[in-house]
Amino acid sequence: MIRIGIVGGTGYTGVELLRLLAQHPEADVRAITSRKDAGTRVAELFPSLRGRYELAFVEPDKARLADCDVVFFATPHGVAMAQARELVGAGVKIIDLAADFRLADPAEFERWYKMPHSCPDLLAEAVYGIPEINREAIRKARIVGNPGCYPTAVQLGFLPLIEAGLVDTDHLIADCKSGVSGAGRKAEMNLMFSEASDNFAAYGLRGHRHLPEIVQGLNRASAAPVKLVFSPHLTPIIRGIFATLYAPLKDRDVDLQALYERRYRGEPFVDVMPAGSLPDTRSVRASNMLRIAVHRPPASDIALVTAVEDNLVKGAAGQAIQNMNLMFGLPETTGLTALPVLP
Amino acid sequence: MIRIGIVGGTGYTGVELLRLLAQHPEADVRAITSRKDAGTRVAELFPSLRGRYELAFVEPDKARLADCDVVFFATPHGVAMAQARELVGAGVKIIDLAADFRLADPAEFERWYKMPHSCPDLLAEAVYGIPEINREAIRKARIVGNPGCYPTAVQLGFLPLIEAGLVDTDHLIADCKSGVSGAGRKAEMNLMFSEASDNFAAYGLRGHRHLPEIVQGLNRASAAPVKLVFSPHLTPIIRGIFATLYAPLKDRDVDLQALYERRYRGEPFVDVMPAGSLPDTRSVRASNMLRIAVHRPPASDIALVTAVEDNLVKGAAGQAIQNMNLMFGLPETTGLTALPVLP
Amino acid sequence: MIRIGIVGGTGYTGVELLRLLAQHPEADVRAITSRKDAGTRVAELFPSLRGRYELAFVEPDKARLADCDVVFFATPHGVAMAQARELVGAGVKIIDLAADFRLADPAEFERWYKMPHSCPDLLAEAVYGIPEINREAIRKARIVGNPGCYPTAVQLGFLPLIEAGLVDTDHLIADCKSGVSGAGRKAEMNLMFSEASDNFAAYGLRGHRHLPEIVQGLNRASAAPVKLVFSPHLTPIIRGIFATLYAPLKDRDVDLQALYERRYRGEPFVDVMPAGSLPDTRSVRASNMLRIAVHRPPASDIALVTAVEDNLVKGAAGQAIQNMNLMFGLPETTGLTALPVLP
Amino acid sequence: MIRIGIVGGTGYTGVELLRLLAQHPEADVRAITSRKDAGTRVAELFPSLRGRYELAFVEPDKARLADCDVVFFATPHGVAMAQARELVGAGVKIIDLAADFRLADPAEFERWYKMPHSCPDLLAEAVYGIPEINREAIRKARIVGNPGCYPTAVQLGFLPLIEAGLVDTDHLIADCKSGVSGAGRKAEMNLMFSEASDNFAAYGLRGHRHLPEIVQGLNRASAAPVKLVFSPHLTPIIRGIFATLYAPLKDRDVDLQALYERRYRGEPFVDVMPAGSLPDTRSVRASNMLRIAVHRPPASDIALVTAVEDNLVKGAAGQAIQNMNLMFGLPETTGLTALPVLP
Repeated sequence: MIRIGIVGGTGYTGVELLRLLAQHPEADVRAITSRKDAGTRVAELFPSLRGRYELAFVEPDKARLADCDVVFFATPHGVAMAQARELVGAGVKIIDLAADFRLADPAEFERWYKMPHSCPDLLAEAVYGIPEINREAIRKARIVGNPGCYPTAVQLGFLPLIEAGLVDTDHLIADCKSGVSGAGRKAEMNLMFSEASDNFAAYGLRGHRHLPEIVQGLNRASAAPVKLVFSPHLTPIIRGIFATLYAPLKDRDVDLQALYERRYRGEPFVDVMPAGSLPDTRSVRASNMLRIAVHRPPASDIALVTAVEDNLVKGAAGQAIQNMNLMFGLPETTGLTALPVLP
Repeated sequence: MIRIGIVGGTGYTGVELLRLLAQHPEADVRAITSRKDAGTRVAELFPSLRGRYELAFVEPDKARLADCDVVFFATPHGVAMAQARELVGAGVKIIDLAADFRLADPAEFERWYKMPHSCPDLLAEAVYGIPEINREAIRKARIVGNPGCYPTAVQLGFLPLIEAGLVDTDHLIADCKSGVSGAGRKAEMNLMFSEASDNFAAYGLRGHRHLPEIVQGLNRASAAPVKLVFSPHLTPIIRGIFATLYAPLKDRDVDLQALYERRYRGEPFVDVMPAGSLPDTRSVRASNMLRIAVHRPPASDIALVTAVEDNLVKGAAGQAIQNMNLMFGLPETTGLTALPVLP
Repeated sequence: MIRIGIVGGTGYTGVELLRLLAQHPEADVRAITSRKDAGTRVAELFPSLRGRYELAFVEPDKARLADCDVVFFATPHGVAMAQARELVGAGVKIIDLAADFRLADPAEFERWYKMPHSCPDLLAEAVYGIPEINREAIRKARIVGNPGCYPTAVQLGFLPLIEAGLVDTDHLIADCKSGVSGAGRKAEMNLMFSEASDNFAAYGLRGHRHLPEIVQGLNRASAAPVKLVFSPHLTPIIRGIFATLYAPLKDRDVDLQALYERRYRGEPFVDVMPAGSLPDTRSVRASNMLRIAVHRPPASDIALVTAVEDNLVKGAAGQAIQNMNLMFGLPETTGLTALPVLP
Repeated sequence: MIRIGIVGGTGYTGVELLRLLAQHPEADVRAITSRKDAGTRVAELFPSLRGRYELAFVEPDKARLADCDVVFFATPHGVAMAQARELVGAGVKIIDLAADFRLADPAEFERWYKMPHSCPDLLAEAVYGIPEINREAIRKARIVGNPGCYPTAVQLGFLPLIEAGLVDTDHLIADCKSGVSGAGRKAEMNLMFSEASDNFAAYGLRGHRHLPEIVQGLNRASAAPVKLVFSPHLTPIIRGIFATLYAPLKDRDVDLQALYERRYRGEPFVDVMPAGSLPDTRSVRASNMLRIAVHRPPASDIALVTAVEDNLVKGAAGQAIQNMNLMFGLPETTGLTALPVLP
């Protein structure tokens, strides 16, 4: 059994980790921290967990995280890097679901997150946790920076085109639609039911923190630096990201369907759908699957790719567990085989 | 492995059976029938099943159901009773998710479902499939009439009060709210998104088919025949039933909380919440759990009980699998341990 | 033109007043206050008002409310009573959309709102603002206590039965379902989209502030004091209240349909629907109409009444304007004739 | 008073015409036809209209449409062109909310709508009904082809850029999101609540009928023929279209904000929001307003324009009434001044 600690367990990624780990045959959740709710049983805050977790939230400094094999950080940005050195020193592996270990360049981190990076040396060894890109490095990693929800969908959606050098990387567009849980479990006015329901809105058009993360990932695969327009929108669903990706093709005769099927052959959690398919977010709801469909719009030289995922699973907690499985030598799908909930 | 057939697999209870059985370690789904969609792979109709089911729908008469150990009927009313004799004769157990084997009195069946019952003898041996009431009989049953979604919540909600003879059974009220999937997967105007969304409506106030089923169940536990007002409403959620039950107390001093906890002690799928709790439907979403909370409204001699369930799981497919587990001597919770999806 | 001031205009009742008053031919909104948003133009906070209001929010003490003919208080409880004496002294009429002038008994106010009433003499002259009950008194009132959203629907739904002395007033039940906007425009966790969407929940079962207000109103019409169980629920719609009311009939032979039609004949904003109708909340969405349907459940001596209203219109801002029309001698329907928005 | 006939009044555009015309001081709805519901009162089918319309649906051939001043066709495609000649001959003006008079080229109509055009001569004189483009022609028109919902938003969103010759018209992208009412009032599986709710989906990527209509409109304003990728998506809201438009700029230094403000100065129903605004669909819900915001994404040479409208109002019935006002010499805003419903 893997001894697991969770730092910051009162948000949506925290409760999703608990939901998924309850089904994981090798997971033993030992500690879960929360400053605000210390002393409260997790099943009291989240009645959906009643009968399955006796655990209560504990103060961060009482959590004995050093006794764990792995610690997940489901916290605001800045928390993981503050505790990383001590835990790694104690032989504990770290999976950070926030942004502390996503951007390789500390200056870039500081620019977007408005705080200096406190352990650039650990950042240098951290592995960016998309298994479909970095599987071998993740197996050996001590620290994994678990990707953002948008970056997972947008990178996996664009990658085959970019790796193959098929598109004009100066004019990439990612028109993305996210469910409201993507903003986290916090009481903000624009996330209220009476504001977000029966409503569709754009946000973050002036620059979203996931933009540099996506660009970093695409640049690693691209011969030339990419220019990306990234437009996030809020759609009134709880879970789900729908990414509609546009890329001008340099060669109109390429077989995109074959390209994508080849790239993701054997991947347990990336499903390239048949040509012409129209994925929807519910087809992956509550599961770790990411589904991609490739299109060629009529009378156009633009490739149109749609990618859907559950932002809390493949876009957060599920991918984190996928990474944990790799880091501990388990079959990659362990605990992640539940089918999407439809309807 | 239990060899399983599903008749009528294109509705919501059919696809929910497939979703849940994919997680069941003893389930081997051999055949699934659909007249309309014969030849289509189930994963084509329901992309959420891609990669997990290679099965295609087959014509009912080509399904070789007699080779199965158990056949689920997820069909309109009238189908199961037409095939029951042949299957039972071949040694196949039957779990009917429609109404053919719910009402013990064939005349009552005919009155509410507008068709004569075609096998009253089999009806006589069929067991009404609420394990928390009929566990031992279900273990030995050849035919189980799986209850309706409302009847499961309303009966389990009222039962402790009625079994204990504590309430005036002449004035029971069940004010129930159902998610839209309870109406099934059919294209009817009042179930369309633009009609049902951002809207709350009553329906069926003149007499709903679940009324006689509930009354039958309560009468079995009651000294005197019950009179019940049953008011179904449609609330814009996909899954979930919320039952608010009212019963005038004959004795105001009884400890209702203790009564309920005692009645359901040890039940894996009925959770009596702490006194004063306010259950919500999402606390059971996509799980087989039914949660009950008991209230005593201020300055009143009325007991108020709230019960929530997922109409497609504990209210249909999940309870059917719970019954199957009993019928085949498996631990009752096998394949049904996934936690509710929250948020 | 009526010179109008609005105190506390950043909540949902405030913006709804602005929406409705924009269509009112006699309304001249002179001032709208907000401490938090002073200086911000209302159309900046609410883009739906762009092009129609140049007004900006002002600090309460700079609003020159004494120059208005009427001031609406769309504030938290306690604000209106603090300013009432000065305004009334200056000849300004007051319509309070909060609770300060709803409960006639100051002790009862203090018990439920946890603050002493600061002007019991003004409370004594204030009129409870349901025109269908108090029309003549409202015409002459200087202060109107505009009713709560639930109380409007529940009182108008029960009144014909109670006025006629037809029911057992010891066992009244109001099972009510409210849209989320009823909780106001505030960022609280349980009102967030990811919590309230695709979910149905009960709340306030231990005692809701609208209970004493309803009981007060029913007692005024009843020979004997009423006992009421009031169960509020939260349904995932933005606007709308659906009240399902149960009352044991003393006389089973009465013609309820005729009773209701007679009681509300000629009322412009109360619509008694044909016998057997099933009202839904969207049939009144964004309008000042309240629709009632009367039912007799099968095999029961209970009267079942359903009443629907838009909690922000007939349940708040619309009724406030209806009261204003009466207070200023205008036709009662002025500015309130827009049809419900369906779908 | 304008005597008005409505052909095909049981769909969403039909009931929306009725809702809006009830507020129109010059409208006198004389007849409304429906084959299926002939004899039924409109207020019975749509309870939101109770008390305001005594009218019943009549058989098309009994409607005495020739006595009207104007007839709206809120029908499937093909109906208006079949009746146009007779009505125009009788001096009746026609506003077709379907597609019969949208595409100027009869061959193009036939290609997309799979039926030959039955009156090309009338098609030749018909005016495409976007007042912000064709105001003077509409004033004199006998036949107006009222635009589709998507085409209104996409054309008005792109036009200033194209008229000014500022963009590479070979690479236009319109990523559009529509509420479910845009598909009409019909019982189709993918439009059901349990399918469309809590879900986001793409559709029509292989070619949507609104594509040729948009291209026709843009070509009229463009020096070079445009190439457009048009991606429609379904978002779980009832009303509303959100268009996110992308166009590569030929000149990066142009002041787009000023361009748009100049183009739409004085337009009563097009609102160019301040630079950097993020419009949402609810800001125009149930109103005839279209709101536009212009953006320059960071580090990119692409112009990003967002446009929102209510698909049933500015995208259908509201724009039809705006056209009627022009055709009858009324102030363009008559009957269309109701503010958006928010929240």
